[in-house]
Amino acid sequence: MTNILIRSDKNSVTTLSLNDLPANSLSMPMMGEIQNQLTTIDHDDSIRVVIIKSESDKIFSSGHNLKEVKGFLDNNDTKSQVELFSTCSSMMKQIQALSKPVIAQVRGIATAAGAQLVASCDLAYGSLDSKYATPGVNIGLFCHTPQVAVSRTIGRKPMMEMLLSGEPILSDRAVQIGLINAAVDSADLEKVVEKSCNDICNKSAAVIAMGKKSFYRQSEMPLTDAYDFTSAEMVRNLTLNDGNEGISSFLEKRDPNWSND
Amino acid sequence: MTNILIRSDKNSVTTLSLNDLPANSLSMPMMGEIQNQLTTIDHDDSIRVVIIKSESDKIFSSGHNLKEVKGFLDNNDTKSQVELFSTCSSMMKQIQALSKPVIAQVRGIATAAGAQLVASCDLAYGSLDSKYATPGVNIGLFCHTPQVAVSRTIGRKPMMEMLLSGEPILSDRAVQIGLINAAVDSADLEKVVEKSCNDICNKSAAVIAMGKKSFYRQSEMPLTDAYDFTSAEMVRNLTLNDGNEGISSFLEKRDPNWSND
Amino acid sequence: MTNILIRSDKNSVTTLSLNDLPANSLSMPMMGEIQNQLTTIDHDDSIRVVIIKSESDKIFSSGHNLKEVKGFLDNNDTKSQVELFSTCSSMMKQIQALSKPVIAQVRGIATAAGAQLVASCDLAYGSLDSKYATPGVNIGLFCHTPQVAVSRTIGRKPMMEMLLSGEPILSDRAVQIGLINAAVDSADLEKVVEKSCNDICNKSAAVIAMGKKSFYRQSEMPLTDAYDFTSAEMVRNLTLNDGNEGISSFLEKRDPNWSND
Repeated sequence: MTNILIRSDKNSVTTLSLNDLPANSLSMPMMGEIQNQLTTIDHDDSIRVVIIKSESDKIFSSGHNLKEVKGFLDNNDTKSQVELFSTCSSMMKQIQALSKPVIAQVRGIATAAGAQLVASCDLAYGSLDSKYATPGVNIGLFCHTPQVAVSRTIGRKPMMEMLLSGEPILSDRAVQIGLINAAVDSADLEKVVEKSCNDICNKSAAVIAMGKKSFYRQSEMPLTDAYDFTSAEMVRNLTLNDGNEGISSFLEKRDPNWSND
Repeated sequence: MTNILIRSDKNSVTTLSLNDLPANSLSMPMMGEIQNQLTTIDHDDSIRVVIIKSESDKIFSSGHNLKEVKGFLDNNDTKSQVELFSTCSSMMKQIQALSKPVIAQVRGIATAAGAQLVASCDLAYGSLDSKYATPGVNIGLFCHTPQVAVSRTIGRKPMMEMLLSGEPILSDRAVQIGLINAAVDSADLEKVVEKSCNDICNKSAAVIAMGKKSFYRQSEMPLTDAYDFTSAEMVRNLTLNDGNEGISSFLEKRDPNWSND
Repeated sequence: MTNILIRSDKNSVTTLSLNDLPANSLSMPMMGEIQNQLTTIDHDDSIRVVIIKSESDKIFSSGHNLKEVKGFLDNNDTKSQVELFSTCSSMMKQIQALSKPVIAQVRGIATAAGAQLVASCDLAYGSLDSKYATPGVNIGLFCHTPQVAVSRTIGRKPMMEMLLSGEPILSDRAVQIGLINAAVDSADLEKVVEKSCNDICNKSAAVIAMGKKSFYRQSEMPLTDAYDFTSAEMVRNLTLNDGNEGISSFLEKRDPNWSND
């Protein structure tokens, strides 16, 4: 019944490895498990970073489970249809609202809500041969919700091409348009993601949590509001123990000793 | 008197080929014709995609007709000046509001409102030697309105460089910054655009129309509003015949048979 | 006591060369001087462009002065902390509000508020070996305010990587993501910036001032508002002497003779 394998290493990194193969579809049970895991992780101070990956190197995630969708449709079960997309949107927003960074480690194909998942993560690294698509148009169900996340990381012209053609793009193009951070040799993918995790684990958890939150909030504000808000966040950041410790350690030319609050 | 040559192929593609050479300026008559054509096309179910191109390979469009502008200026005809820019803005918004995708097929030079036209189309493909500029600053009339469309497809730094210098950029740079989808060998341009048209014609017209509209609407919303809106669109998309047909055909491993509603 | 060297050439270009080495930190005195200079420049019709650079090729600017910040912190001087970030935000907004274009000429390292300064300038050119970072997270003080400017020029994925890792990026990557306009050989940097200055000095000052202002204003508006606003700006631009002169000179095939109003 478990669609996700969960691994925690000593280094405070928790990996959610999607394991409902061959499609890793974001069915209601799969999304429920992801949401539950994220809720638990959010309150666990020992966890510093989350990796979302797949157990298979053929598929990251294919998006919604079309059998499930068809079932709701055949039963005229509008309530479940509404719940499905509302749950998916909540899960994507939960990733951004999470107090810890979430990294997509992509192998294989990420399509529709699977591409939305990649776009919703804070960081994303893909193997050179991984592919990304918003192909809903091919099956008569436009990627209305996936485009919300994807279009907030890439420009309009490449977004429209993906939406209207349904064609996949490779990792190199995904980097060029800003959908992922880097396209790396398959053999190096774990190493690159591990480096990113280490970078984050070496910082203060309190500062990372505060910063991630302020980033997404200010990104939806006009310039003056954004500056008013973030200036206040700067002053508030200085009241954290780790704000003081960080500046002190820098001026004293020593390594900081984070208390993570 | 006709500034546009109109061609329709069997494949449901209508081409508007600008033919007021040598400049293909967006004069009031030219914009009137384009608007009329778009209005007709919008209500013609047999048309699935629109291509905007030029009869010349030297110029795509040079933007506003400066003789016309000078005439309004010399006559202190403020009303016509207001109408000119209002008409131009309406035409650009009409392209985005159109129920069918619009593709710019660019050869030669696209400047000022001509670059705005490229930016306003859903997709744009250019020959390698085509050029794009917002050079209004060179003639004392800043590209105030062209920047609206162009700055919504490219970043601030390249936009400012184009606006302040007035200098053209080549297709390769235009791809890099996101103004066009691809820069292709002149000999292959028609083929690339045809492929894009075929991609679109193979989908459901109703789904494409709905998706194009939802894309532009959600792009101006904050994240939560965008998810609420597009989640409702997903449920509404499922009520379309082609929503049901598309999912059914996928699950039954057969080609979909679109009714286009 | 002077943290900036000011140079004016015959060509109407004023250079503010940051000279509080080795760090060129944006201390309160440094920011005060920059603001005073910008205020003077704004009202000086003989100045057409501003370059911000450093006297050192090792460092552009390191951002806030951490000794200063620590002093405010140790004294529980919240008022000065508030003033510090408010002053910094005001300075960044002043650059955008300035009636003349501001160009960042970057050599060496631009970090935190130093990277914010680069992002806040209208144009930015960097030597190939210059570096950009938002490393506040390394010293427990997240780059809350720098991200406001930087995230409005680059995409979310590269922004998050810079914010969470604190790692610097080189000029080539900075061009790819849109933070700077071009990465050039160190030996050519002055020449490239001079070319950009000349481009601007050859236009009408009134038109540049009007255009720069309309660019930033429309960039925060929804599409229809942006078109309404900029269409009115177009008509207003035509009432400028240089609007008339520019169009006339173009139609008469002669060089324009700007009166700069």
